[in-house]
Amino acid sequence: MITEVRRLLDEKKYRELRDLLCEEEPADIAQIFDQFPKDEVPLMFRVLHKDFASDVFVEMDSDLQQALIEGFTDQELSDIMNDLFLDDTVDVIEEMPASVVRRILKFADPERRRQINKLLNYPEDSAGTIMTTEFVRLKAHFTVADAFKTIRRQGVDKETIYTCYVTDDHRVLLGVVTVKQLLLAEEDTVLQDIMIEDPIFCHTDDDRKDVSLAMSKYDFLAMPIVDSEQRLVGIVTVDDALDVIQEEDTEDIEMMAAITPSDKPYLKMGVFETWKSRIPWLLILMISATFTSKILTHFEGSLATLPVLTAFVPLLMGTGGNAGSQASVSVIRALSLGDVQMRDFGKVLLKETIVAVLCGLSLGIVNFGKMYVFNDVNRTEYGLQVSIAVSLVVSIAIAITVIIAKISGGMLPILVKRIGLDPAVMASPLITTIVDVLSLLVYLGIAQNILRMFGINI
Amino acid sequence: MITEVRRLLDEKKYRELRDLLCEEEPADIAQIFDQFPKDEVPLMFRVLHKDFASDVFVEMDSDLQQALIEGFTDQELSDIMNDLFLDDTVDVIEEMPASVVRRILKFADPERRRQINKLLNYPEDSAGTIMTTEFVRLKAHFTVADAFKTIRRQGVDKETIYTCYVTDDHRVLLGVVTVKQLLLAEEDTVLQDIMIEDPIFCHTDDDRKDVSLAMSKYDFLAMPIVDSEQRLVGIVTVDDALDVIQEEDTEDIEMMAAITPSDKPYLKMGVFETWKSRIPWLLILMISATFTSKILTHFEGSLATLPVLTAFVPLLMGTGGNAGSQASVSVIRALSLGDVQMRDFGKVLLKETIVAVLCGLSLGIVNFGKMYVFNDVNRTEYGLQVSIAVSLVVSIAIAITVIIAKISGGMLPILVKRIGLDPAVMASPLITTIVDVLSLLVYLGIAQNILRMFGINI
Repeated sequence: MITEVRRLLDEKKYRELRDLLCEEEPADIAQIFDQFPKDEVPLMFRVLHKDFASDVFVEMDSDLQQALIEGFTDQELSDIMNDLFLDDTVDVIEEMPASVVRRILKFADPERRRQINKLLNYPEDSAGTIMTTEFVRLKAHFTVADAFKTIRRQGVDKETIYTCYVTDDHRVLLGVVTVKQLLLAEEDTVLQDIMIEDPIFCHTDDDRKDVSLAMSKYDFLAMPIVDSEQRLVGIVTVDDALDVIQEEDTEDIEMMAAITPSDKPYLKMGVFETWKSRIPWLLILMISATFTSKILTHFEGSLATLPVLTAFVPLLMGTGGNAGSQASVSVIRALSLGDVQMRDFGKVLLKETIVAVLCGLSLGIVNFGKMYVFNDVNRTEYGLQVSIAVSLVVSIAIAITVIIAKISGGMLPILVKRIGLDPAVMASPLITTIVDVLSLLVYLGIAQNILRMFGINI
Repeated sequence: MITEVRRLLDEKKYRELRDLLCEEEPADIAQIFDQFPKDEVPLMFRVLHKDFASDVFVEMDSDLQQALIEGFTDQELSDIMNDLFLDDTVDVIEEMPASVVRRILKFADPERRRQINKLLNYPEDSAGTIMTTEFVRLKAHFTVADAFKTIRRQGVDKETIYTCYVTDDHRVLLGVVTVKQLLLAEEDTVLQDIMIEDPIFCHTDDDRKDVSLAMSKYDFLAMPIVDSEQRLVGIVTVDDALDVIQEEDTEDIEMMAAITPSDKPYLKMGVFETWKSRIPWLLILMISATFTSKILTHFEGSLATLPVLTAFVPLLMGTGGNAGSQASVSVIRALSLGDVQMRDFGKVLLKETIVAVLCGLSLGIVNFGKMYVFNDVNRTEYGLQVSIAVSLVVSIAIAITVIIAKISGGMLPILVKRIGLDPAVMASPLITTIVDVLSLLVYLGIAQNILRMFGINI
C-alpha cells in the first residue's frame, strides 16, 4: 500500500491517488500518512475528498495535525474545523499550542466558538471534556412519525442518532428513546408512551472514567450528561468511552511501573521526553533506598560475624517485594474497576491477611527444605547447628516478610485513595522499596534472636 | 435500596417488590441480589417480570447464575435460556460445570443447540467465542423500504439493528449499511447504491482482543465476522468489545504482577483460589533468586574485607529493578495496544539504549553526589580515599546496571512475543530477578577492578 502511494505521489497521479485512498478507512489512511515525511502530508491531505478529509484528520496524531493546521490556508482551516464533531474539535484543540488554538477559534462561527470554549472549561478528565453537544433532542408529545422527521432533519450532523433524548422546555432530561424502539412502534405512538423514563445519566463534572465504566456496565451506546440543574447538555458516545478506558488503563499501568503517564504512543515520544517521564521516580526510589544502606551499615558488626547471612538478603527482599506487588496490584485494579470500594476495607484486610499467612507459610517451608537439601549454608564449613539455625532464620524471615508485604500491599492503595491520591502510585516500585526496608529489619531482628537461642552470638 | 428490598421481602409484599425492582437497571439489580444470601435469590428472581428476568440473569456473576439454574424448574430454565441472546448464553455456559451445561443444552431447541455448540467450539479467546449469530441480513437489491420492513420483522430479537449486513446468496459479505444511512436515504433507493462496499471484517479465529482494538480504531458499533470462505457467520457488538478490552487489560496487569490471571472479580475469589493464583510465581521467583545467594557467597571473601560494600547491594538492585520495569512495562503496553510491532525492534532498541544511557548517567551522578555529601561511606572510619573509591564503585555500578536493565527490559518482551509467549510475563518481577543477578555481577566485578586502581585489594 505504502509503495503504491509513494509511486502515485512521485508520478503526480493525484486522481488515482485519491481513488486509492478513498477506499480505505480514515484510521488506516492516518497511519499511512504517518509513514511519510511531514512536508509531503499536506499535499496528500489535499488530494482527499473534503468530507472525507476531516474524518482522516481526526484519526491523526496531534503532531501531524499541528503540522497540517500550520500549513492550512484560512479557508481550509475553517472548512475542516466546521466539519468536525464538536468533541473531536475539542480533543484537537487540547493538544495544540496557544497560537494554533487562537487561529482555530478565529475561524469557528460564534455559536460554535461558544460551545468549544464551554467544553474546554470543564475540569480535566471530567465527562464535560469528552462529551459532544451534538445529539438529537425530542419532545415528549412528539409521535414516532414526528421523531423520524426530526431525526432525518437534524441527524446528518449528529454523532449518534440511535439514542435520542426527550427533554422539557427547560431542557431538563425526561426520558430516552432508541431508534430501535421507534422502528418497532406504530407511526402515531406518542413518545411519552414508549420512552424510558428516569434514565441513567451522569454529570458534567463526573470523572470520565466513571462515566465510561457506567456505559460498559449498562451496555449503553451513549450516556446523557446533565448540568447541575439536571439540564441535558451533552452525550458521551461509546467510541469515546472505549478510548477513555484504554487511556486510563495505560495510565494505571504506567503509574504502576513508576512512569509519569503520557498521552503519547510509545514510539511517538522522543527520548528526552521518555527520560523525563522516567527519571523522577527512579531518583525518588533510589534516594528512599538509602534507608536499606543505613540499616545494613548499622548491623555491619553482626553481619561480619556470620557473613553467610548477607547472602540471603536479595532473596528475602525479592520475595517480599513480589508478594507485596501481587497484593497491591490486585487491589489497585479492583479499585480501578470499581470491584472494591472504600467500604470493603475490612473484607480486603481479612482476605489479604489469610492469603498472606498461606503464602508466607508455603514459601517459608519450601525455602527451609530447599536450603537444607541443597546445603545452601555449607554444613562442612559452618557446622550442622549453624547451618540449620541460619536456614531457620531465613525461612522465618521470608514468612514474616511475605505476610507484612501482602498486608501492607493490600491496604496501602486503599489508604492512599482515601487521602485523595491515585492508588496506582502504591504499586510495585513503591511497595518494593517499603518492603525492602521492613524485610531487612525483620531479618536482622530475627537473626539476632534465633541465633542466640542456638547459642550463637552475632 | 437494600433495606427496602429486605423489608418488602420479609413482609412478603411481592407485588411491591416487583414494582420497586423493575424500575432499576438490570446491572443494578444483579448487584443488589449479590448482597443477599444465595437461598433467597431464587424467590426474588421469580418476582421479576419474565422478559426482564433474563436481562438481570445475564448481569449476574457466574456463581449466582449457577445457584439459580440449579434451583430452576425445567420450564423456567427453558424460558430463560431461550430468552437470552446467543452470545450471552454461550458466556453463561462457559462458566458452568458439565452437569449444568447438559441440562441447559437439553432445553434449548435443536437449531439453537446447534448454534450454541458451534460457538462453544471456537478456539479460546477467538472472535468466534464472543460473536453473536443474531444480526440483520439484507440483500443488495432491496430498497430502503424493503430494508426497514426486514428490520421491523427481524429486529426484535437482534442484539443490534443499527448496522445491517448485505450478503449474496451464499452468505458472502458484500457490504454494510447503517440505519442512519437508511433513515437519511429515499424510500426507493436500492441498497446496492448506498451500502459501504468491501467493508472491514474479522475472521472467527482472530484474537478477540485484536477484534476489539480494531472496533475501537474504526469506531464501529459492530464488527462483521466471516468464516474461512468469507461467509458472514456473526457479529461482535461494541459492548462486548468494551468488556474484552477491560478483561484483557486486567489479565495483562495481573501477569505483570506475577499473578495467574483469573476471570473473577477480586472479592469473589476465595482465599484458597487467590493463594493458588499467586504462589506458583512466588515460588519460581524465590528459587530463581538463589542465584543471588550463590554470587554473594562466592564473593564472601571480598565483601568481608570491605563490609561497607554490602550496604549498597539493595540500593543497587532496587534501582536496577525499577529501571528495568519501566522499560519492560512501556514496551509490553505498547505491544498490547499495537503501538509497537515486531518490525519496530530496531527502533525500540535505539530508543531504550539512548534513554538507558541518559537515565544511567543521571542516576550515577546524583548517587555519587549524594554519597559524598551525606558521607555515606564514613570518611573518618574508612578514610577519604576508600570513601571516594566505594562511592565511585557504587555510582558506576548503578549507571551500568540501569543501562543493562533498561535495554534488556525493553528487548525481552519483544523476544518473548516472537517465540509465541505473552510478553506480559516479562514485566517487573521476572525482569527484577534477572536484573538482580546481573547487577550483583556488575557491582562486584567493578568493585574489584576500581578498588585495585585505588590500591585497595579485596
